Amino acid sequence: MADSLQELRTKINGFVTARDWDQFHSPKNLAMAMIVEAAELVEHFQWDTLEESHELTPEKREAVSHELADTFVYLLRIAEVLDIDLIEAANQKIVLNGQKYPVDKVKGSNKKYTEY
Amino acid sequence: MADSLQELRTKINGFVTARDWDQFHSPKNLAMAMIVEAAELVEHFQWDTLEESHELTPEKREAVSHELADTFVYLLRIAEVLDIDLIEAANQKIVLNGQKYPVDKVKGSNKKYTEY
Amino acid sequence: MADSLQELRTKINGFVTARDWDQFHSPKNLAMAMIVEAAELVEHFQWDTLEESHELTPEKREAVSHELADTFVYLLRIAEVLDIDLIEAANQKIVLNGQKYPVDKVKGSNKKYTEY
Amino acid sequence: MADSLQELRTKINGFVTARDWDQFHSPKNLAMAMIVEAAELVEHFQWDTLEESHELTPEKREAVSHELADTFVYLLRIAEVLDIDLIEAANQKIVLNGQKYPVDKVKGSNKKYTEY
Repeated sequence: MADSLQELRTKINGFVTARDWDQFHSPKNLAMAMIVEAAELVEHFQWDTLEESHELTPEKREAVSHELADTFVYLLRIAEVLDIDLIEAANQKIVLNGQKYPVDKVKGSNKKYTEY
Repeated sequence: MADSLQELRTKINGFVTARDWDQFHSPKNLAMAMIVEAAELVEHFQWDTLEESHELTPEKREAVSHELADTFVYLLRIAEVLDIDLIEAANQKIVLNGQKYPVDKVKGSNKKYTEY
Repeated sequence: MADSLQELRTKINGFVTARDWDQFHSPKNLAMAMIVEAAELVEHFQWDTLEESHELTPEKREAVSHELADTFVYLLRIAEVLDIDLIEAANQKIVLNGQKYPVDKVKGSNKKYTEY
Repeated sequence: MADSLQELRTKINGFVTARDWDQFHSPKNLAMAMIVEAAELVEHFQWDTLEESHELTPEKREAVSHELADTFVYLLRIAEVLDIDLIEAANQKIVLNGQKYPVDKVKGSNKKYTEY
């Protein structure tokens, strides 16, 4: 995995260990923590139109960036405790997604793959 | 941002553009898509004990890795359309978290910071 | 609680007991199960415009009604195992919401109460 | 639908109309609002063991009851704007669930129906 990402993982692991929080970081608990952060992101956009969700005030932009960061931190923790390489997993999934959604079938459409 | 992460982002952007899906990728829609993937992860653990959530069969491990990948892909997309540097945002948030949860106060405790 | 709602709760409790599933129905597990169902609802609307989300095909309408039902079933189960009266809780919360969002301040606005 | 539930729906509709909030209550927005409330419930249990999630302090019990209430309110609103009868939908879904999970196959097991 890449340098700055590896550095971030190491920093997060140190943060957790210093607080003796590994004992709480089961995949089940971490999955709950991550969806809570994802929901805090959703909350910022829940009453927006699609257009409004692109236009953030500086305050909202900062708050949104914090929710993205928290989601990312828990995502990295889950990958860590399950020993999954996120970059590799994402690269593999994109290949599968490409098979599920071939360009010539889905171009410009928002249908779910089960509808094709 | 790091090389392999930058490479992944470029790949995802190409995937989206080839399908003319940028039109659907408002922050609002992407936040919804990300929480749906986070929930698919939660589903894998919902009836597990904390211990069981550590012990994955090879099939479940692969499925979990796909959900993590999908969550990651949408996280990267949101960061992309809002022009937020995820690594930088996470590094900044960890500093703030360190202030909210000082080691000497929270060590070994799972209380929320509002309870201190 | 009302007759048809009481009848539904009794039916759900019987369903669970017949399958010996009470052992899995801790509030923690049920909260996870409920958010998974809520996410399946979100998935139906994730690429819709606000207008499109009002216009359901008969198939989508049925699927949406199933997700609402599943969310409702888990909501009733959580209330059951924690011995909380949902109708009473909702009536009390509406009073609190009325204080947080006084009509003369919020009419026609989608701002969060912390922004007033 | 039952009397106390009907009364609650009428009260909620009045609350929304008095604030001129119907304009924000598309199914898409309401689904987002509901999952945000469901996540606030999840947050209360995220670091608990299964046993701890049964044992609520009076403060936590009240907070949990508020999250259940908020989830219920949005569930009723979605049903309202889509003109779906929640009680009927739940009764129908339980029949389908009974077919997916026959007692003699699933008794005492937490496996997903796709695994049978």
